[in-house]
Amino acid sequence: MPTPLEELGEFSLIDRIVQRLGVAAARNILVPPGDDGAAWRVEDGCAAVATIDMLTEGNHWRLDTMTLGDAGWRAVAANVSDLAAMGATPDYLLVGIALGIDVTLDEVDDLAEGMLQACLAHHVRIAGGDIVRSNTTTISIAAYGHSAPLSEVPQPFLRRSEAKPGDRVAVSGTVGASRAGLEIIEALREGEPGAEVLTRAHRRPRARVQLGQEALRAGLTCGMDVSDGLMQDLGHIARASGVGIEVAAAAVPIEQAAVDLLGADIALDYALGGGEDFELVLTGPGDVLKRLDQAATGGTPVSLIGRVVAEHPGEVIVFSDEGQPYEPTRRGWDQLR
Amino acid sequence: MPTPLEELGEFSLIDRIVQRLGVAAARNILVPPGDDGAAWRVEDGCAAVATIDMLTEGNHWRLDTMTLGDAGWRAVAANVSDLAAMGATPDYLLVGIALGIDVTLDEVDDLAEGMLQACLAHHVRIAGGDIVRSNTTTISIAAYGHSAPLSEVPQPFLRRSEAKPGDRVAVSGTVGASRAGLEIIEALREGEPGAEVLTRAHRRPRARVQLGQEALRAGLTCGMDVSDGLMQDLGHIARASGVGIEVAAAAVPIEQAAVDLLGADIALDYALGGGEDFELVLTGPGDVLKRLDQAATGGTPVSLIGRVVAEHPGEVIVFSDEGQPYEPTRRGWDQLR
Repeated sequence: MPTPLEELGEFSLIDRIVQRLGVAAARNILVPPGDDGAAWRVEDGCAAVATIDMLTEGNHWRLDTMTLGDAGWRAVAANVSDLAAMGATPDYLLVGIALGIDVTLDEVDDLAEGMLQACLAHHVRIAGGDIVRSNTTTISIAAYGHSAPLSEVPQPFLRRSEAKPGDRVAVSGTVGASRAGLEIIEALREGEPGAEVLTRAHRRPRARVQLGQEALRAGLTCGMDVSDGLMQDLGHIARASGVGIEVAAAAVPIEQAAVDLLGADIALDYALGGGEDFELVLTGPGDVLKRLDQAATGGTPVSLIGRVVAEHPGEVIVFSDEGQPYEPTRRGWDQLR
Repeated sequence: MPTPLEELGEFSLIDRIVQRLGVAAARNILVPPGDDGAAWRVEDGCAAVATIDMLTEGNHWRLDTMTLGDAGWRAVAANVSDLAAMGATPDYLLVGIALGIDVTLDEVDDLAEGMLQACLAHHVRIAGGDIVRSNTTTISIAAYGHSAPLSEVPQPFLRRSEAKPGDRVAVSGTVGASRAGLEIIEALREGEPGAEVLTRAHRRPRARVQLGQEALRAGLTCGMDVSDGLMQDLGHIARASGVGIEVAAAAVPIEQAAVDLLGADIALDYALGGGEDFELVLTGPGDVLKRLDQAATGGTPVSLIGRVVAEHPGEVIVFSDEGQPYEPTRRGWDQLR
């Protein structure tokens, strides 16, 4: 007997999803969802900024640790975060969904609801999509945004390649909370005091759009988002910029709940090596970074955690309180390993 | 023992793919592949046109019928075709790849080579991407292009909703060749005379970019690409426009090789119901459509196959030579069924 999903068919299911996306479906653009492509007016003088991400079940999420609604939220946040990491303004998403054979209609509805909530939280809308069946549920989102007018800013993007010796290194919010949240979920400790801030960081992370734009306006030119893990992402900056980076472990901002529930050592490991936090790392003059912290754009504090050096180019070294190089148990997340 | 793919790791593999993409990697844009997002300058006064597609192994291709290089080509062509169907100019692709557990490094190289060739054939470049592991190989491409300047054309897009009673209906090239090619491959008949035109249509289809643009310039406003199957795609136009469509089976352009190798009945069934041809269907005044055919934009002839009527809105009827409604065995391709 066919499941309700098969009975609905592709086009009815698309209609249903667009309905449930509500205001998150970009209906008042030049060509809204429903034609071969979507079309929208582009602001004169700006650059297009775009990115794509793939999230697959079993790799980026598991059904025993988060719902499809959570996965939908995360897929939106991960993409928007890449635009935030460029200092861009996110505008529209295109959403490709491959539904695994066991997915139910309720789960599809939940996925749409999760994407809707994430779109509202990040002020983006969905301009189009594609839906297919697969053996493995996969969500692919492409995000499109725009830069500030190119003639108005000397450097219209935050780049990985712009770190310079003498720069300080900063990170927004806290890091490691998403990975700590996953451990809390897996250990069935969600009911414990303080767990919710961690599990929420794992299932419903927020991208730092306002901070990225504010960093550019403040004259910063180097930044990226923490998606693979703080050390690995700083490594990307170190290699792209041909510089070394030194981090003081004691300065890395960690959720107190992670320390309370998992202990200081594990919390620090996750802060340095856990991914998917979607905070921003920035480099630049210390006073500019401190002013960003005082402004706390969107309520997001910014912590100074280290410095850019000419030595050991391409390498990130974390120093413990005793001044010894610290070796975390994991150096971040490589999708292929 | 890890395979070479695992040894390589995500970031080395991305470098390798970008290398092998050669000129198809968009290196001279504002932000080329390698940062959080890609960025490029947008032409003033134009609209952005964008689309996304998901192709999954086992659903859109099988490894016994095409290589990963073919799948890469098709993924590019399918996306570019959606922009062609809008009358837009394709510019950049974002490519998400989920590599199945059995994929080898040679197959990844082949995938890159197929995408490179398709990019060259369609004059697009790859601006960025994402690569992950999965249980099921999945290719997701988002294509990004631009319209003609909005102030220069009264109607800057080909839409599905613009068919009007009195319009004639036309289709470019031939239809059903891709589905016929699949049957030839499955029946191990690739060596037979004439087979190559069909198998090539299946594995290396071409999108009709030039024709879409030419149709807009000629004043046409209604069109889409044949991806789900001619009858089903005409059904999309009929429903979006609130009109009926009548097609003369005898007028539908079919590859002679399909008739020769599979017989006239099956060839016609595939022409009406087979998908993935990536030809364009257009509606409009007969004389305009005929002039498009005479111009044969990009060497692509255009055949008049039917008309738009006020009766039976939302319905497509195909008439046989005897004037009887023809019932094909399959009405196109629904991804969920």
